[in-house]
Amino acid sequence: MGVVVPLGSKNETAKKASLKKLQSLVADDLSKVNKVIVDRMSSRVPLIPELAGHLVASGGKRLRPLMTLASAHMCGYSGERHIQLAACVEFIHTATLLHDDVVDESDLRRGNATANALWGNQASVLVGDFLFSRAFQLMVKDGSLKVLDILSTASAIIAEGEVLQLVTSNDTSTSEDAYLEVISNKTAALFSAACRIGAVVADRPKAEEEALESYGRNIGITFQLIDDVLDFSAKQATLGKTVGDDFSEGKITLPIILAFRRGDDEERSFWIRTLENLDQQEGDLEHAMGLLEKHGALEDTIERARHYGAKARDAIGFFPASEEQQALVDVIDFCIERAH
Amino acid sequence: MGVVVPLGSKNETAKKASLKKLQSLVADDLSKVNKVIVDRMSSRVPLIPELAGHLVASGGKRLRPLMTLASAHMCGYSGERHIQLAACVEFIHTATLLHDDVVDESDLRRGNATANALWGNQASVLVGDFLFSRAFQLMVKDGSLKVLDILSTASAIIAEGEVLQLVTSNDTSTSEDAYLEVISNKTAALFSAACRIGAVVADRPKAEEEALESYGRNIGITFQLIDDVLDFSAKQATLGKTVGDDFSEGKITLPIILAFRRGDDEERSFWIRTLENLDQQEGDLEHAMGLLEKHGALEDTIERARHYGAKARDAIGFFPASEEQQALVDVIDFCIERAH
Repeated sequence: MGVVVPLGSKNETAKKASLKKLQSLVADDLSKVNKVIVDRMSSRVPLIPELAGHLVASGGKRLRPLMTLASAHMCGYSGERHIQLAACVEFIHTATLLHDDVVDESDLRRGNATANALWGNQASVLVGDFLFSRAFQLMVKDGSLKVLDILSTASAIIAEGEVLQLVTSNDTSTSEDAYLEVISNKTAALFSAACRIGAVVADRPKAEEEALESYGRNIGITFQLIDDVLDFSAKQATLGKTVGDDFSEGKITLPIILAFRRGDDEERSFWIRTLENLDQQEGDLEHAMGLLEKHGALEDTIERARHYGAKARDAIGFFPASEEQQALVDVIDFCIERAH
Repeated sequence: MGVVVPLGSKNETAKKASLKKLQSLVADDLSKVNKVIVDRMSSRVPLIPELAGHLVASGGKRLRPLMTLASAHMCGYSGERHIQLAACVEFIHTATLLHDDVVDESDLRRGNATANALWGNQASVLVGDFLFSRAFQLMVKDGSLKVLDILSTASAIIAEGEVLQLVTSNDTSTSEDAYLEVISNKTAALFSAACRIGAVVADRPKAEEEALESYGRNIGITFQLIDDVLDFSAKQATLGKTVGDDFSEGKITLPIILAFRRGDDEERSFWIRTLENLDQQEGDLEHAMGLLEKHGALEDTIERARHYGAKARDAIGFFPASEEQQALVDVIDFCIERAH
């Protein structure tokens, strides 16, 4: 890996601080969520908690359940339903990750060997199914058909988005809008559902539900775009993840879409060879990163992310100022600053 | 394939007749179910209905939804809820099949190329997730938390059973009871849920729910045991399925468990080499089938299946005589006679 793309100089402390406020505000709730997760992962088949626990315990930020908790608090909710529902959200997320890693044939996630690398694809598919079913059992226990509707619809949208991504995965002619549709579905749908159910449990008016839904959708897009940038950035290596995974799989993400559209014929031939034909050689990743830099594709992807971050900020501006509101605004900065 | 195991001489006509009664009793409902299935499989991502339709249209018997329909009728239900719920049951079943074929690396199902063989494992995993989510959306639309509870619990049990089977899949020391636990979970749980919701929509007393639950569980076990027999039988070839799939995957099914326990040291070494070490050579399948015949393992597996069939028959005997009741009894014979 010869090319290092400078993405800025913000320091680690600033980044970590922006999620810490959220974490400390809902710390008690989060430990209850973790307890529900551990309890409900259990099974008389030991492989299930073993495999699921590997992923659940492997340094995930619990970003989505944190957002459910904070949204509920911001909406003035004082009961306990958000605890179980935050655990549901994390189960759906974990099930998705397990299936994603099988689909992507990934070996590393968050710097750890993936479940499929350790236990095989078969176990990952089935334990994903188990967690998904458990999520629905938890929702049924909660008893709200509205919440069930929101999360079952989100699950169907996520799966649709994943299939859409698979279908377009080696198509360099993918447009920015088509790509945004993919990530709105596969990533942003769960963020928006996670936030929206905060308003639902608090029984708030539709406008508040929609504000949280919009915040979640936009921060989800922000998050995914930065994830796409990180896949090509030196920062990634310090996170323990492999650089260039998306490239080696021929995944068409926004940085690629921008560089392809801004490139000349020779460059487009390169992208077609490496990403459509998956004919990759030594040095191709470095060349790709050089092209991304030449066209400012990573910087501009971050700019696009900032745009969605700004929309998320305005969406949540609908609520009166509170510590939770500020913490949710800070998450936007956290998402964007991950790139630096 | 040199060894043909004679399983009896019942003719085709008798077999087909026993499912036809059920099919004709609920024919109108079944065509409505098929319409719901087609409608709800649709997606703006064309691969989804294409892939799901391949499996849904590929000669499945719709056994589980038929049982939901007949159970509801038998319980005197005259509404429309059972239509959507029967479609749910088929979606859950189809999602399970898609994931199963990935896990088993199967190339053929019902004589057709499997979805994973045609579109790849990745698409099969994701479309399975989509169908599973769709099933839950349909249940939410139905609006009964009780039905949601029954089917989400069944889904978790199925996934648990699949993982359990994976864990024990090459273990020749698996006991008959341990194996029965696997198939009670992975196969019988959906049959029992499919039947039970017939009583739930009709708002019948708990005893009727439990009778249908028991009927479904026992016929599910019957069905799976006969499936295990068919995998080693010449009949299988006429159904377009590959003979010996379970053997080549090292799956430990009841015929193997019986032959292993009845065999001598040399035979056990053979089973361990072929099924635990998966060290298989030309002629091993024929030798395996010879051992199964020598120990009457297929015939006795059919006998065991008859035992569960008898339990299913008594369970449904709880209901007053009706055409639907008789049709559900006939399904038991249909399941067993598949072996012949």
